[in-house]
Amino acid sequence: MRKVIVTKVTRADLTVVDQLAELGVATVHEAIGRAGYLGPGLRPIQDGMRIGGTAVTAVCWPGDNLMIHAAVEQCQAGDLLVVTTTSPSTDGMFGELLATSLAARGVRGLVTTAGVRDVAELRAMGFGVWSAAVSAQGTVKETAGAVNVPVSVGGQIIRPGDAILADDDGVVCVPRADVGQALAASRARLAKEEKSRKALADGQLGLDLYGLRDKLAALGVSYVEEERDE
Amino acid sequence: MRKVIVTKVTRADLTVVDQLAELGVATVHEAIGRAGYLGPGLRPIQDGMRIGGTAVTAVCWPGDNLMIHAAVEQCQAGDLLVVTTTSPSTDGMFGELLATSLAARGVRGLVTTAGVRDVAELRAMGFGVWSAAVSAQGTVKETAGAVNVPVSVGGQIIRPGDAILADDDGVVCVPRADVGQALAASRARLAKEEKSRKALADGQLGLDLYGLRDKLAALGVSYVEEERDE
Amino acid sequence: MRKVIVTKVTRADLTVVDQLAELGVATVHEAIGRAGYLGPGLRPIQDGMRIGGTAVTAVCWPGDNLMIHAAVEQCQAGDLLVVTTTSPSTDGMFGELLATSLAARGVRGLVTTAGVRDVAELRAMGFGVWSAAVSAQGTVKETAGAVNVPVSVGGQIIRPGDAILADDDGVVCVPRADVGQALAASRARLAKEEKSRKALADGQLGLDLYGLRDKLAALGVSYVEEERDE
Amino acid sequence: MRKVIVTKVTRADLTVVDQLAELGVATVHEAIGRAGYLGPGLRPIQDGMRIGGTAVTAVCWPGDNLMIHAAVEQCQAGDLLVVTTTSPSTDGMFGELLATSLAARGVRGLVTTAGVRDVAELRAMGFGVWSAAVSAQGTVKETAGAVNVPVSVGGQIIRPGDAILADDDGVVCVPRADVGQALAASRARLAKEEKSRKALADGQLGLDLYGLRDKLAALGVSYVEEERDE
Amino acid sequence: MRKVIVTKVTRADLTVVDQLAELGVATVHEAIGRAGYLGPGLRPIQDGMRIGGTAVTAVCWPGDNLMIHAAVEQCQAGDLLVVTTTSPSTDGMFGELLATSLAARGVRGLVTTAGVRDVAELRAMGFGVWSAAVSAQGTVKETAGAVNVPVSVGGQIIRPGDAILADDDGVVCVPRADVGQALAASRARLAKEEKSRKALADGQLGLDLYGLRDKLAALGVSYVEEERDE
Amino acid sequence: MRKVIVTKVTRADLTVVDQLAELGVATVHEAIGRAGYLGPGLRPIQDGMRIGGTAVTAVCWPGDNLMIHAAVEQCQAGDLLVVTTTSPSTDGMFGELLATSLAARGVRGLVTTAGVRDVAELRAMGFGVWSAAVSAQGTVKETAGAVNVPVSVGGQIIRPGDAILADDDGVVCVPRADVGQALAASRARLAKEEKSRKALADGQLGLDLYGLRDKLAALGVSYVEEERDE
Repeated sequence: MRKVIVTKVTRADLTVVDQLAELGVATVHEAIGRAGYLGPGLRPIQDGMRIGGTAVTAVCWPGDNLMIHAAVEQCQAGDLLVVTTTSPSTDGMFGELLATSLAARGVRGLVTTAGVRDVAELRAMGFGVWSAAVSAQGTVKETAGAVNVPVSVGGQIIRPGDAILADDDGVVCVPRADVGQALAASRARLAKEEKSRKALADGQLGLDLYGLRDKLAALGVSYVEEERDE
Repeated sequence: MRKVIVTKVTRADLTVVDQLAELGVATVHEAIGRAGYLGPGLRPIQDGMRIGGTAVTAVCWPGDNLMIHAAVEQCQAGDLLVVTTTSPSTDGMFGELLATSLAARGVRGLVTTAGVRDVAELRAMGFGVWSAAVSAQGTVKETAGAVNVPVSVGGQIIRPGDAILADDDGVVCVPRADVGQALAASRARLAKEEKSRKALADGQLGLDLYGLRDKLAALGVSYVEEERDE
Repeated sequence: MRKVIVTKVTRADLTVVDQLAELGVATVHEAIGRAGYLGPGLRPIQDGMRIGGTAVTAVCWPGDNLMIHAAVEQCQAGDLLVVTTTSPSTDGMFGELLATSLAARGVRGLVTTAGVRDVAELRAMGFGVWSAAVSAQGTVKETAGAVNVPVSVGGQIIRPGDAILADDDGVVCVPRADVGQALAASRARLAKEEKSRKALADGQLGLDLYGLRDKLAALGVSYVEEERDE
Repeated sequence: MRKVIVTKVTRADLTVVDQLAELGVATVHEAIGRAGYLGPGLRPIQDGMRIGGTAVTAVCWPGDNLMIHAAVEQCQAGDLLVVTTTSPSTDGMFGELLATSLAARGVRGLVTTAGVRDVAELRAMGFGVWSAAVSAQGTVKETAGAVNVPVSVGGQIIRPGDAILADDDGVVCVPRADVGQALAASRARLAKEEKSRKALADGQLGLDLYGLRDKLAALGVSYVEEERDE
Repeated sequence: MRKVIVTKVTRADLTVVDQLAELGVATVHEAIGRAGYLGPGLRPIQDGMRIGGTAVTAVCWPGDNLMIHAAVEQCQAGDLLVVTTTSPSTDGMFGELLATSLAARGVRGLVTTAGVRDVAELRAMGFGVWSAAVSAQGTVKETAGAVNVPVSVGGQIIRPGDAILADDDGVVCVPRADVGQALAASRARLAKEEKSRKALADGQLGLDLYGLRDKLAALGVSYVEEERDE
Repeated sequence: MRKVIVTKVTRADLTVVDQLAELGVATVHEAIGRAGYLGPGLRPIQDGMRIGGTAVTAVCWPGDNLMIHAAVEQCQAGDLLVVTTTSPSTDGMFGELLATSLAARGVRGLVTTAGVRDVAELRAMGFGVWSAAVSAQGTVKETAGAVNVPVSVGGQIIRPGDAILADDDGVVCVPRADVGQALAASRARLAKEEKSRKALADGQLGLDLYGLRDKLAALGVSYVEEERDE
């Protein structure tokens, strides 16, 4: 791992990121080609929050949050901090004090593959967190890492400045250069879904709405009456 | 896997299922001989809901929700959809649109060994979901599966038409033919528990109430004073 | 495993335990040298509760809650029951009836490496539970275990009479003899944190507050401008 | 759970089962429609063994192997014992003594969702075992279960008398009534694979052999030259 | 965690430990009352090794093996090093160089809840290792821990000087003071097992040998003929 | 996910990769700054193999190996195929036929975050495989993915053409541009280790060899005699 703090990050257009965030993680993920989802391992510590921001990344040693402190300085209003560790860790590397510091800079939230603590206080502050664990286990500040290098979470690659969107369904990353296109595609998808929602609420079937009856037949699926014994 | 959609399902008596549901998962599970519990891996996405229904089952390929669409058509009012995959999957195979479609048919909820998404919307709709994961990851509609065949969840076998009960403790399956007996046994258990509750609240000990002192002695358990060093 | 029920337990001073509990799990864990945390595997079944008590311990056979009944009798007001199993188990060994019995004796809550059930009822009662699983799966009362012997949870050793503190961040154990010292250290830490909080809220950086800039340099971390391609 | 020992089991034709076993788990699983595989959680404790037999099933309480002893009596030459527990357990419910007893009856091996012990001795005996865990943890004989009822392993349903095949790839179940058909289909598949193997060894591509180029195009997959930066 | 290196350890009698080790982990575990097993999570990196020794313990920070180096100096011939971390870690904290150093002191092997690397070299050296993971991930030497304090592995408490036995079934700990008694009990058990083995090999059933038929009846287990449909 | 097959890949110098491979995964990982290790989740299906090659990458849909077929055509002698899925999957996406095809092209082995089957045949062929699972579960060929795009495995980013090294300790990735430097650093490390090995074999302590005594003191670690009771 290179021991660097990258100080200049070209960020995704925050106005677009904010509009994307409103549309929700699942919608955007679908609209960009079922891409960028960071996986079911990252869960919100709070219910009902939907936010977005531009990624500042930090790579920490397990059991060590030194590089989070270094990352704070690189954050600006509209950012969302993304923290990973060089090997799997559940430690509570982040809590109320760091959230206070980030909030003072206008940072919108935290996404981490490790753990967080002070969750009651974080909820009370309204500081959004998506993490792999909740843990009171404290950390040290002894080992180097990196800030604002590409990181990998849940099989996805996140580059500093990319758009990060998070809600109750988890977290999605949209590459910086793609946010405009993603917004257009997401809106188109929403419009289409709105139509589908009405049709389905009226009792129309997805089988018909999406033309799936022929596909079932082509795949050799047959309709049979109930069977006596299976 | 046979590629079939079974169209005729003999369902458990819904009136009885509804009465069973009110009694709660733990009570019914105990009353039927500590049977039918689908395991701690299925968790509700909402708090405080207690529902029951008759099982319609769907077996899907991982990453593919084609057969859920086929299953919707086989559902009727009072049903509860049970979805499994042919190999472990956490993908978000089910969301708000499918819930809208099921709700339009009077379906009570979803139980799935895979993932769901749009959880904020599902909670707002009041559509009950018990799943193994929450994931925004989308799916395709390309591969065949089955509807209304027996499935296996958490080591239990569920047959179409069986009663499915779900609350904050998880999900239990009661075989179609056994719901009447299960209701009687559950009510008997509740009456007995009510008595125990009062006794215990009054300070009586389970050791005495259940006659466990002799058992402890027979098992060779001895009472000793505190030990200096262990 | 020795089959014993230890009847005399020297408990931590409850007045001190109560004061410790208010300070929160993360604070106390840090203050006593980042020690005693029972790990991220124990999660509360409720939100927003913060309690403390003195440990009564029970070791059960998997699928068997006999020794919990034996443990109830050893509990007194101010205790917190800690239950482990001799091999990993998720079964619902504890529910509303046992909670009623414990509440009648003034016990404050339950910590268990296994599962609990009746979680809706437990929440309604306000009986605090931290467990590794929620499961409706019932248990038998057939096999011997032990009460008030040292147990191990999450890599930590808990002795009967130790202080157990629990909140949304999980559970921490403070050895009986150390509670006074822990209280002093925790208060000192809180005072220090209060200062840090203000500084950070005012925009001061942890890098400066904790003097980390020199450490980064000493570790060979360098600041670089954004890179074209990584 | 019903507390029964079913004494009469109609078994799959052992001559056919033996021929199926030679063809290997993966081949048979594919030939019967990618069905019956008991999942990656069951691993052999030995390398290079390939066996088959007819299922005798046992359902045990966790931490309790009473019903394995009851099952032994129901076993006959050519059988393969399948053991599950009513809730997840890793305990070493089976070891050298039980293997000695089964071997004396001509039983071919063990498949279990729990743990085994004495693995050095079992390997030395040549008694084949596929299990979810290796554990020295001992069990008691106190709680009822069932023998020769349908069980569920890895999402598959196994009925007494079904064919069980096991090798280094894991375990597959073929329903009793289907073994003849499965043998024919598996042999056809092997013949086809033999042809493919030769073609592929000669350098032909699967893309051509299986006609996948058109499918890639239809799915919108495009060929591009290397990209400067991704 | 106290930052101490305890230099004086009273060890179990090595002559007895050596005799215990020959009897095997499962036998000793059973003989001492089904106690002391460190769980299925610790697996040998080699096949067919059976060793024993006296415990020297080390507690490390995750991602940091400083305290292993401190522990080496505390080791003497006949010891077996037991390493844990203050929070879950899979890192390769131990490899060929440390094994060389330990082997030079007559240490018999390593047991660790974390990871090891250089497994090919360790196997070639014949240095026995039981670990929770194999990982090449390297560690630093920056954070304090402890040597020769009681540790907890797999729910068991290990004190410095206790006997540690390990083979293909895993690892068991016998408290220092109990090794003599454990040896006698284990030999008695072996003698009894030898008898059982012969009886079972001759076709006698465990049901009769252990008198389980009455128990089955008392538990309400009934024998029934095969059922048409389940 | 972009649906592309990138046809032109600039590969690391194979002569250097071959020399790197001989040095072993742990050594190279350390030498390049404790970087690039793909984690303990990828395990070899065989013992004692040590190989290296240049990465061709494939991203598949879960339960679908279409893109592996597309990737084969992009492989050349000296390559090592790296396969991931868009969501977690254990399916047996790769077996003997695909290995035959790859071997015919001079490909050295497979690394996959999913499962493989035909492991007995793969071992017999000597075709090296590192995977997260062994599973007989078959897959379809219905859904698009990508070939030769950057992928993420175990928190590391792998770009087509990077060097992949694998042995009993797992898998490490060295960026294409860094292989020369990595070789020099690894050789320097080996030379240093050789010296350390001799010193340690002669009984010198790591505490002295690496100068750790002062560090322990600075960290506040104290030496104490044995304690009566802990």
